[in-house]
Amino acid sequence: MAEFMTETDERSPGVPRAGTPEEPEKTADAATGPLDGQEAAAQLERTRALVDPELRAAIESLPGAMRRVGLYHFGWQHADGTPAAGNAGKAIRPALVLAAAAALGGPAARVAAVRAAVAVELIHNFTLLHDDVMDRDTTRRHRPTAWTVFGIPDAILAGDALQALALGLLADDPHPASAPALARLAACVVELCEGQHVDTDLERRAPDAVTLDEVLVMAEAKTGALLGCACALGALYAGADDEDVAALDGFGRQAGLAFQLIDDVIGIWGDPRHTGKPAGADLVVRKKSLPVVAALTSGAPAAAELAALYGRPHVEGEAETGEIARTALAVERAGGRDWAQAEAADRMARAMQELARAVPEPEAAGGLLALAEFVTRRTS
Amino acid sequence: MAEFMTETDERSPGVPRAGTPEEPEKTADAATGPLDGQEAAAQLERTRALVDPELRAAIESLPGAMRRVGLYHFGWQHADGTPAAGNAGKAIRPALVLAAAAALGGPAARVAAVRAAVAVELIHNFTLLHDDVMDRDTTRRHRPTAWTVFGIPDAILAGDALQALALGLLADDPHPASAPALARLAACVVELCEGQHVDTDLERRAPDAVTLDEVLVMAEAKTGALLGCACALGALYAGADDEDVAALDGFGRQAGLAFQLIDDVIGIWGDPRHTGKPAGADLVVRKKSLPVVAALTSGAPAAAELAALYGRPHVEGEAETGEIARTALAVERAGGRDWAQAEAADRMARAMQELARAVPEPEAAGGLLALAEFVTRRTS
Repeated sequence: MAEFMTETDERSPGVPRAGTPEEPEKTADAATGPLDGQEAAAQLERTRALVDPELRAAIESLPGAMRRVGLYHFGWQHADGTPAAGNAGKAIRPALVLAAAAALGGPAARVAAVRAAVAVELIHNFTLLHDDVMDRDTTRRHRPTAWTVFGIPDAILAGDALQALALGLLADDPHPASAPALARLAACVVELCEGQHVDTDLERRAPDAVTLDEVLVMAEAKTGALLGCACALGALYAGADDEDVAALDGFGRQAGLAFQLIDDVIGIWGDPRHTGKPAGADLVVRKKSLPVVAALTSGAPAAAELAALYGRPHVEGEAETGEIARTALAVERAGGRDWAQAEAADRMARAMQELARAVPEPEAAGGLLALAEFVTRRTS
Repeated sequence: MAEFMTETDERSPGVPRAGTPEEPEKTADAATGPLDGQEAAAQLERTRALVDPELRAAIESLPGAMRRVGLYHFGWQHADGTPAAGNAGKAIRPALVLAAAAALGGPAARVAAVRAAVAVELIHNFTLLHDDVMDRDTTRRHRPTAWTVFGIPDAILAGDALQALALGLLADDPHPASAPALARLAACVVELCEGQHVDTDLERRAPDAVTLDEVLVMAEAKTGALLGCACALGALYAGADDEDVAALDGFGRQAGLAFQLIDDVIGIWGDPRHTGKPAGADLVVRKKSLPVVAALTSGAPAAAELAALYGRPHVEGEAETGEIARTALAVERAGGRDWAQAEAADRMARAMQELARAVPEPEAAGGLLALAEFVTRRTS
């Protein structure tokens, strides 16, 4: 699953700003303006301050090996068990839980929802531990992945333990929202699993055997579902009714898809100085990302060229021969880049519409909008 | 994790009957006699009839690939998706949930606890799916394991989905016991994970670097914990107080350890005609099972011979040369077999003491005792 990395001031190739057709001034005003990035950064910092002590206490409560792998994964320990500064990611999902709770229930709901925020962050990290095993990814948050350090069995077991810890935390929560929140989070895990399955399956297929709809459905299950669930849990802890909970879920899902589209654009055209990855990293591994599949299925003349380039196995040094640059150009000429940018803008517009249904006041919606803009206006 | 296979009429090498020192007549009378096996078999059949429809509905509720792997794993589908007769194991754990509920709360509690029984069975099977991946086991219930059919990623994902399904089922249960049951089951998952880690770790160590206490602690975490949790959940659904819940947990744990000891005895001296495995199967793979570690750490003269035999790598055909028979004899001469039988009897006695604390009436305790006897009086 994609991970949120450091933000920079540079805005391109982020999603073009989108207003909501029905209520442009209500939502757009709160969402834009020069302070967005700062507001989101401040929210994320406040979230870390609220969530980290409980998150860390939960990990510390695990027995021996599970605790060791967990503390390493969250960046609180080095591989040898010595203390580390902590590097647990940007806390976007717990921030969405708290922002949704605050938007619908004010500051008291934000405080009440801290445990739900911790549970969502634990679920996210359980999927990261397992995805890294399945994808054989060796780097996560600029460090060796847990399975490369502790072996595959312990990474699987630690993921299992984090899922149990997450759902067990909610079961112990006396808040009346805890049972529906738990049921919703458990259902989300099932959706995440199916999404990861479809992703693995799509990557195994030939480039011309994948439809754009399949990739969009996969991205919603794999990325949108947990962002939607985070927002829905915040709404539940604010005592929202079913309709508002569904709207918040829709907001998170659409913002999650916008995020994934931008993430895929960065995977092709992102600046290596910002991403920390080689240029065209996703093209090197022939990833069937959203812009690539949009290009392949566009019917444009460049699509055939792209299909031929994608059909070739990766060879060492192909970036140096200009092959990766040619592939990126083919995606662009077949319309993949423009489609992804427009689709991301459309998804953000839909996200704002969903949000406006449940939270019409711009003041209350501001926190959620700032986070959504933050994750879709990145360069790395 | 060890699996309960078919029962036969043959009793040896089952655990010697144990009475409870404090209340011998109360508990032993209800537990023994020629009808034990029949009573347990009838209970297991009733459990399957109550649990299977809900269990299957839960699996059918999963999306595409997760459903396919789940239906295969439980024996309801062949690998190609065509219907199969079903072969989901003996349902010992759900039977313990229902028997504990009935023992403390009568027939109404038994019915109320069905969902908890389904949840426990789902958790057990999630751990089987993951353990088979970690241990690279290729056979489960006489069929190819899920990972050999669907690949490692889908087996990991299906296990993750079963855990979520199990805990989500309890979250949706309006019964007042569902939240504490869920918290207890989640904590049990963490213990199972640590147990599996320790097991993997012990298997990697040299034979002389493992203590008997370590293997006992591991067996309690890996096998005893979920049997204890099953009984505790039944007690919770019967409205039992903390003390009785703890006693039922203790009963299940001790019976689970007795089961593991007998399972380990069968893994060395079991008759291949009953076990379906080659003679001395556990010795072939140099498993550090309880009788072996008891023998290795006994200080007896045969212990040194056993250590030398266990230090040799497995070679094809060593069973034919008599090496496996020599190893089994060394375990026996060093006292490993006698110790395991005595320890199993002792654990069964402790189990009965725990049970008598919460359920002093032999009539009410009969169902649980019959199940405990059933799992410790097997030959395969």
